[in-house]
Amino acid sequence: MTTIAQWDMFELALSGPSEGNPFLEVNLHAIFRQHGRSVHVPGFYDGEGTYKVRFMPDNIGEWTYETRSGAADLNGKSGSLSVSAPRSGNHGPVQVANRFHFAHADGTPFLSFGTTCYAWTHQPLAEQNKTLQTLAKARFNKIRMGVFPKDYPYNVNEPLHDVYQRDASGELDFDRPNPESFRHFENQVKALGDMGIQADIIMLHPYDRWGYSAMSEEQDNRFFAYLTARLAAYHNVWWSLANEYDFLLDAKPMHQWDRYFHIIEENDPYGHLRSIHNGDPDANYDHRKAWVTHVCIQNWDVKRTAEWRAAYGKPVVNDEPEYEGNIVQCWGNISAEELTHRFWTTAMRGGYAGHGETFSHPEDLIWWAKGGELHGQAWKRIGFLRQIMEESVRGGFDPIDPQMRFPWNRISGARDGDTTIIYFGEHQPVIWASGLPQDDGEYDVDLIDTWAMTVEPAKIVPAPENHPTRHGAHIRPRKPDAAFAVELPGRPHLAIRIRPVRS
Amino acid sequence: MTTIAQWDMFELALSGPSEGNPFLEVNLHAIFRQHGRSVHVPGFYDGEGTYKVRFMPDNIGEWTYETRSGAADLNGKSGSLSVSAPRSGNHGPVQVANRFHFAHADGTPFLSFGTTCYAWTHQPLAEQNKTLQTLAKARFNKIRMGVFPKDYPYNVNEPLHDVYQRDASGELDFDRPNPESFRHFENQVKALGDMGIQADIIMLHPYDRWGYSAMSEEQDNRFFAYLTARLAAYHNVWWSLANEYDFLLDAKPMHQWDRYFHIIEENDPYGHLRSIHNGDPDANYDHRKAWVTHVCIQNWDVKRTAEWRAAYGKPVVNDEPEYEGNIVQCWGNISAEELTHRFWTTAMRGGYAGHGETFSHPEDLIWWAKGGELHGQAWKRIGFLRQIMEESVRGGFDPIDPQMRFPWNRISGARDGDTTIIYFGEHQPVIWASGLPQDDGEYDVDLIDTWAMTVEPAKIVPAPENHPTRHGAHIRPRKPDAAFAVELPGRPHLAIRIRPVRS
Repeated sequence: MTTIAQWDMFELALSGPSEGNPFLEVNLHAIFRQHGRSVHVPGFYDGEGTYKVRFMPDNIGEWTYETRSGAADLNGKSGSLSVSAPRSGNHGPVQVANRFHFAHADGTPFLSFGTTCYAWTHQPLAEQNKTLQTLAKARFNKIRMGVFPKDYPYNVNEPLHDVYQRDASGELDFDRPNPESFRHFENQVKALGDMGIQADIIMLHPYDRWGYSAMSEEQDNRFFAYLTARLAAYHNVWWSLANEYDFLLDAKPMHQWDRYFHIIEENDPYGHLRSIHNGDPDANYDHRKAWVTHVCIQNWDVKRTAEWRAAYGKPVVNDEPEYEGNIVQCWGNISAEELTHRFWTTAMRGGYAGHGETFSHPEDLIWWAKGGELHGQAWKRIGFLRQIMEESVRGGFDPIDPQMRFPWNRISGARDGDTTIIYFGEHQPVIWASGLPQDDGEYDVDLIDTWAMTVEPAKIVPAPENHPTRHGAHIRPRKPDAAFAVELPGRPHLAIRIRPVRS
Repeated sequence: MTTIAQWDMFELALSGPSEGNPFLEVNLHAIFRQHGRSVHVPGFYDGEGTYKVRFMPDNIGEWTYETRSGAADLNGKSGSLSVSAPRSGNHGPVQVANRFHFAHADGTPFLSFGTTCYAWTHQPLAEQNKTLQTLAKARFNKIRMGVFPKDYPYNVNEPLHDVYQRDASGELDFDRPNPESFRHFENQVKALGDMGIQADIIMLHPYDRWGYSAMSEEQDNRFFAYLTARLAAYHNVWWSLANEYDFLLDAKPMHQWDRYFHIIEENDPYGHLRSIHNGDPDANYDHRKAWVTHVCIQNWDVKRTAEWRAAYGKPVVNDEPEYEGNIVQCWGNISAEELTHRFWTTAMRGGYAGHGETFSHPEDLIWWAKGGELHGQAWKRIGFLRQIMEESVRGGFDPIDPQMRFPWNRISGARDGDTTIIYFGEHQPVIWASGLPQDDGEYDVDLIDTWAMTVEPAKIVPAPENHPTRHGAHIRPRKPDAAFAVELPGRPHLAIRIRPVRS
């Protein structure tokens, strides 16, 4: 009996019909059973008469399975597998936790620190290896990547594989996926998973010269089902229905997008995360819809993070608060300081920002689309922020004041468990007390330089006295003073962290 | 016959009753006539039996006047004055021009570059002189200043004068203005006017321990009428009904604020600018109301400037995009770089920003409230921006794309006449073409460093070619290329200016 670890993949390969168009004409699924549970797992055609069913068990112990198909060769195949404890490092798929946050299936908190390499799996293999090497040293734990190649400025090369097969005349046949292309894509998803990186898979996008973005509604529906059947058993998969779906709305109206979500739900037995990314800042998808697990947006106005949390009631991932770089396109030319600032601002308002890098390159090797090497300075600071947050994370960082009243509308502060982090950004007070503890417990207070990536003990001073007169009688009452204040060096981009002394 | 220059002040002083409470019991106005026009000018009681009528003629030539009063001593006094051409430097009161902008009455454009010294006229005289000296070297042309003293952190000293008289028991009598206080205030308004600085007079505010903010509705109404009658004849007056009116709403509901506007209109024959300033960023007054001449707001999210222009259809003055400083209050502790950035961003989106400085000081001498000396670094850069804009101003700078479509939602660009200025802010492209001329005329193109305050010829390069493939077929069509592009040094906070070569 096959033995695999929990959240690893069990793959059943079967031989079946290869005549006609098996992608259209042959159905296959398996039922996996354990104790009283049964899990419906769709299969898929992998070319050359081979059919596969992939299963990611979420529980240890013995499972049995049996296949169902209209094709006699594929029907009624049964067997069993034994599932052992998860391999060290595999915490299971990421799910929504604590309403605005994420955690792996084993409960390990997942703080999303993503980057973007839209078409990295379509570049020459040497370049793809370089991307994986870079990811190994950076501290990103999610990457946005497209199934389809990209046609865009700086992206004019042909992809490594056609995603669909070509017919005798050399035309792409959008009724016949190219299994070779999908196998390669999957291998890279697996490589990411082995590094603990979530693959945020972009299923459609508008930047296309091959015709992939112009498939019919029925072809799209089949594509979503096929992709989901192939990839759902990889533990590190997130579904991103599109990059900039709103730029495709004239061809694919809203009801189609809603339906794509349903198709994914129907074909993914594990309920991987599902969202969809806008282009225009005024064209957010309505992430309140029940089939959306988390908010995915593009917006540079990161102080609005708590507003999006309130609007949608779900985790907010702002994957494009603009990219560090210097290209002419101005979604791709902010400074490293500014992107670092936007990461801290987003994180300390209860959201998760995403990274991208777009530095002009003589051979157009730009990280945001092709991967390769990082040339900027924000990525290290983002890794530092991840470290700071992971040192204290319990359920996820929520805004100190979810109503974002003064001063939390102007500066950014968040709490998780007994840890408070306040990020001052462009503000540079020489003394600070708001949000600090009001009791007389003992606290470790750190001064954090978000750019220099230093942490040192902060200087504690008495909290400033309240102004003794009756000014502001018409302003909402202030909270009592904190028990102490922090003296600060009076320069921007600092943070403080307050934690109880742990004995 | 008295001769004065146009837009200077003619003052008629009359002796009248001093018994009872002349502030309440005696009415006085004069009719000034020229050709077919008659102007109704309210008078006021200046104490010790003296009544005054002040008139600011808006036309040269001879004017006659005649007083009206229920008091026989004040009624039917008549005379005439001769009005000569305006003194050099007096361009007349500032009015709305070109919908979103301002100009003096003689047509000279007025680009508002304001600062804030809420209570400077209530400080010791030596400090007030220092404020005027500082203003003489800075390049601000508007100052926000309160009629009433301020009670607030760093503002605990008693004012130079009570604004109302005290009764025998030492209590303030809110039915009896203190003419000495008003005379002092007026002298400082005049001193500002002589320096070409607009006095943006804040009539009420909530930061009060004396009771001025708790006067009755009727007392408020009389206060507005009295203040307007005294001050409207100063050419450099703007009316700001309140600082942070929304923090007074529980005591003074909205209909009272609306009524205050009407009282000002009734008592100001010259129609000086009228607005009102919010505290909470979500509590803007409805500046669409007919009696509001321009938008006055407090908001740090300066990229929204064009949104406010569209919402209210009037000039936008963002007087508090937060202040440069380092105090604990976080409306008052942004860096000089950030305030400079917010000025440029506001200006290049068609609005006008305001300055304030709040550096912690051992004697609490902080510019934003008390005036005195400037300690920061933004004020020089703001003067530089004023110089840049005044070199090219015709009607006022409007956004390149009032719809704020890409890329103008992300970066800031404005035009006035044949001048285009593009401010990149946190963006740092190494090449730029959007918004540059599309014809083959000859242009002077300057690279402006907004922090170093340098202007040098920009390097012109060929405009980048459009991407040749069919990407973005679903995105709105792009405008044709510009005729050329500018090469940039790839660092933030730069601007470029494009003007036709002038032979």
